Amino acid sequence: MANRFFLLLLSAGLPLSVAGSLLHWPATLMFGIYCLTIIALASYMGRSTESLAIVAGPRIGGLLNATFGNAVELIISIFALKAGLVEVVLASLTGSVLGNLLLVAGFSFFVGGVRYKRQEFNANDARHNSGLLIFAVVVAFVIPEVFSITMSESDTFKLSLGVSALLILLYLAALFFRLVTHRGVYADPSEEEETVHEKPEWSRTTAVLVLALATAAVSYVSENLVHTFESVAQRFGWSELFIGIIIVAIVGNAAEHASAIIFAYKNKMNIAVEIAIGSTLQVAMFVAPVLVFISLLFPDRMPLVFSLPELIAMVTAVFLTVTVTNDGDTNWFEGLTLIAAYLIMGIGFYLL
Amino acid sequence: MANRFFLLLLSAGLPLSVAGSLLHWPATLMFGIYCLTIIALASYMGRSTESLAIVAGPRIGGLLNATFGNAVELIISIFALKAGLVEVVLASLTGSVLGNLLLVAGFSFFVGGVRYKRQEFNANDARHNSGLLIFAVVVAFVIPEVFSITMSESDTFKLSLGVSALLILLYLAALFFRLVTHRGVYADPSEEEETVHEKPEWSRTTAVLVLALATAAVSYVSENLVHTFESVAQRFGWSELFIGIIIVAIVGNAAEHASAIIFAYKNKMNIAVEIAIGSTLQVAMFVAPVLVFISLLFPDRMPLVFSLPELIAMVTAVFLTVTVTNDGDTNWFEGLTLIAAYLIMGIGFYLL
Amino acid sequence: MANRFFLLLLSAGLPLSVAGSLLHWPATLMFGIYCLTIIALASYMGRSTESLAIVAGPRIGGLLNATFGNAVELIISIFALKAGLVEVVLASLTGSVLGNLLLVAGFSFFVGGVRYKRQEFNANDARHNSGLLIFAVVVAFVIPEVFSITMSESDTFKLSLGVSALLILLYLAALFFRLVTHRGVYADPSEEEETVHEKPEWSRTTAVLVLALATAAVSYVSENLVHTFESVAQRFGWSELFIGIIIVAIVGNAAEHASAIIFAYKNKMNIAVEIAIGSTLQVAMFVAPVLVFISLLFPDRMPLVFSLPELIAMVTAVFLTVTVTNDGDTNWFEGLTLIAAYLIMGIGFYLL
Repeated sequence: MANRFFLLLLSAGLPLSVAGSLLHWPATLMFGIYCLTIIALASYMGRSTESLAIVAGPRIGGLLNATFGNAVELIISIFALKAGLVEVVLASLTGSVLGNLLLVAGFSFFVGGVRYKRQEFNANDARHNSGLLIFAVVVAFVIPEVFSITMSESDTFKLSLGVSALLILLYLAALFFRLVTHRGVYADPSEEEETVHEKPEWSRTTAVLVLALATAAVSYVSENLVHTFESVAQRFGWSELFIGIIIVAIVGNAAEHASAIIFAYKNKMNIAVEIAIGSTLQVAMFVAPVLVFISLLFPDRMPLVFSLPELIAMVTAVFLTVTVTNDGDTNWFEGLTLIAAYLIMGIGFYLL
Repeated sequence: MANRFFLLLLSAGLPLSVAGSLLHWPATLMFGIYCLTIIALASYMGRSTESLAIVAGPRIGGLLNATFGNAVELIISIFALKAGLVEVVLASLTGSVLGNLLLVAGFSFFVGGVRYKRQEFNANDARHNSGLLIFAVVVAFVIPEVFSITMSESDTFKLSLGVSALLILLYLAALFFRLVTHRGVYADPSEEEETVHEKPEWSRTTAVLVLALATAAVSYVSENLVHTFESVAQRFGWSELFIGIIIVAIVGNAAEHASAIIFAYKNKMNIAVEIAIGSTLQVAMFVAPVLVFISLLFPDRMPLVFSLPELIAMVTAVFLTVTVTNDGDTNWFEGLTLIAAYLIMGIGFYLL
Repeated sequence: MANRFFLLLLSAGLPLSVAGSLLHWPATLMFGIYCLTIIALASYMGRSTESLAIVAGPRIGGLLNATFGNAVELIISIFALKAGLVEVVLASLTGSVLGNLLLVAGFSFFVGGVRYKRQEFNANDARHNSGLLIFAVVVAFVIPEVFSITMSESDTFKLSLGVSALLILLYLAALFFRLVTHRGVYADPSEEEETVHEKPEWSRTTAVLVLALATAAVSYVSENLVHTFESVAQRFGWSELFIGIIIVAIVGNAAEHASAIIFAYKNKMNIAVEIAIGSTLQVAMFVAPVLVFISLLFPDRMPLVFSLPELIAMVTAVFLTVTVTNDGDTNWFEGLTLIAAYLIMGIGFYLL
């Protein structure tokens, strides 16, 4: 049913996107059309990645998911970097981290918790993720911020490159750890490997084709989307920061948001948490540092230095999530706590 | 015996308060008399709330305790706001958080720990409280502070109102969670519901009457107390900040301090921790945001923006308490650690 | 074998140190000779302390280890203070904290984890240490930093003295707790007291003699070492900060580094963690505050106020270590995470 909805959305959105961009329809209208089209395309990218992952087996599949899981976000950001919108990219990375940690996890815990009194997930995974969240956000994002205060711009960028390289290496090491050396070592005995009997939706060829076409389409729409930001910001009195943090982050992650909540509703908390927190780690440890390197290709380089409100919002969100999830036990109130934290930050960024 | 002591204190304190205020006795003398009288009155408010709570049953009783538990603090703060002492109110909120988290919990763990090698309390409650402490202090207090740096005064106050509304709503949700949907869900099987056979000290009518009279008297004395701050500060060379943080916080919470330590001495750690940390959460999630709204009635509005030393002291105190209490196991050394942290901050505020 | 290596190193290093210093050999050469000689001498101090600790029994032995464990670092720092190099001392304290927490623990977990899938150590000790790390670094180091922003220099030093006194007292209380009141209370039943059958390497007299001679020699070499910093900094384009944080910290702790990793390789994680984190706590709660008091003897006083990058590096390192170690379970990936954090900070300090 969801699939049919996205098919419909795509069938309407893609032609309208092309037509509107050629005929120069008003920017705010196009902003809406582009956003919806990207959401639809993202669902196709997600489904083709899923299919490929099942065909390829758990190891390569994990790698595929880890690389393409935030492809939409990556693509939008590359076009924003090309357009010189460095602040918007940093803002959308922030928004993605906050959205996944607080909104996706929050709604998952809340929706699942309304149905089940207590929901549990693998506490070992929770602690593994906690360590990485603290590493990526509290160490790797905070250090360049603080050290850059008294640094030249070029040294700040050098430090950003170094930190980015280490983030990517540790991200790859984490995949190696989970998929190769410690596969199943920390699993609960009660967990079955549910992936065994799964059937891919598409064959390998179809999936590759869908992935390629959807990626091309997302690229086309993203490039246009990025150029509507200025007009939309003026029209609604929003800052470009707010667009980056709230709107782009929600558009880029809409599909994941939906599926995490559905898994929580089905009491499959391991997967729901994996989507919410795994996606955060992917943004912080892979998408963000890759963008730092990609920015070398453009005139405006992007250091790994967020604005202070962005950094503090991410750091406090990490501390809250780590504290709430560390015991591997959730309920509706913990979900509400995360959502309330998101709202506090949302109000803050709106007024900023 | 304690009751007789407070009766004596009240019998002497109340007439002296009235006489001294009419006859304009020296401010420093009156400061002492007012403080002692309020401590005595607070014990009456506490006992009448207890009685009402027992009569009303656990749900309404929990609500009553949650609302009237820091009534004295609220009343003093309202009169301080009326007198335009916004900084003193923020300081006394800080002092209350620090006092409960570090001093009350610290002495409870220390005194109990000298008698028993290891004391345990419900680790699930500890983690629930940890999440709320991080939410209230590390998220809800830090965000307005950081975001307000580049905000106009009016936007800062708007943000404060939004954060305050969310704090109060989550506080009510936490009560609903603990008293209704998840009552007993996280209880240790070994814990008996000890409240079952309790008898109220006073009948409902007497309790309501005592509560009303004590509240009126506390209001009268508080209004006078607030006006002695300036003189006392000058006389002893203290800053008004120091009076707010150390003195007002101790006076407003003296009764709770005493009872938490007594429970710890009797090895009833669940109740001792509940008083110390529950009281902190009440101040941070209910008293503080309510005061932000109440300040709308007065010319000087109170944003939820503490001074940097106040904020950092609260944040570090929360991290220390969360780390120490998270395992549900205490000993004398953990108590001493909390007390030492309080002393470090006390020296800091004294020298500020 | 290691002993023979250190004997050789000493036999060459000590005469060369004396000769070079008398004949005014180039500073960068002497810097290298001094560093190697100190590493050799440190191993002698360590072995004589070990012998004395075994002879004296576990209580006095624990006290001896706790006092002499970082004697080399203390001695170098005293001569640096005497030479007015307050910033270098603060930097080397920072480096020692970062080196022990991230590098020593990191390599121990990594090396041990490559051999064993999961390694475990006493989780109660881990939590005890977590509380102290948060107390020492997040409370006791952060408060003077933040409060000193608006304080006079003399008040800042007063606050530093107060904080230092409390740190030392709590450090002694922690020894009392572990060696007297709670000895064995938190031990795993599976842990045997392995120290029982240990034989000292040297007799009491020999050990005292070796300790005295090595201490004297370390003092002599340290005083000379300190005076080479300026030339070395100029020669290699390093800041004195970088020398303090990276070089001095590694030299002062080389022996500990080696033995922690060897214990991890033998799967004796309790001892490896005790060396890494115990040594950090000793630096933060004993060496640093003692140096504050010792600086009273010299014209340049040392407040307990680090530079912002130093403080933030230590605070984030503590949060990472606490998160990673709190469950008493390690693997190679957790080790790699700590090492990556050290590298991030290393790059930062190099570029600063």
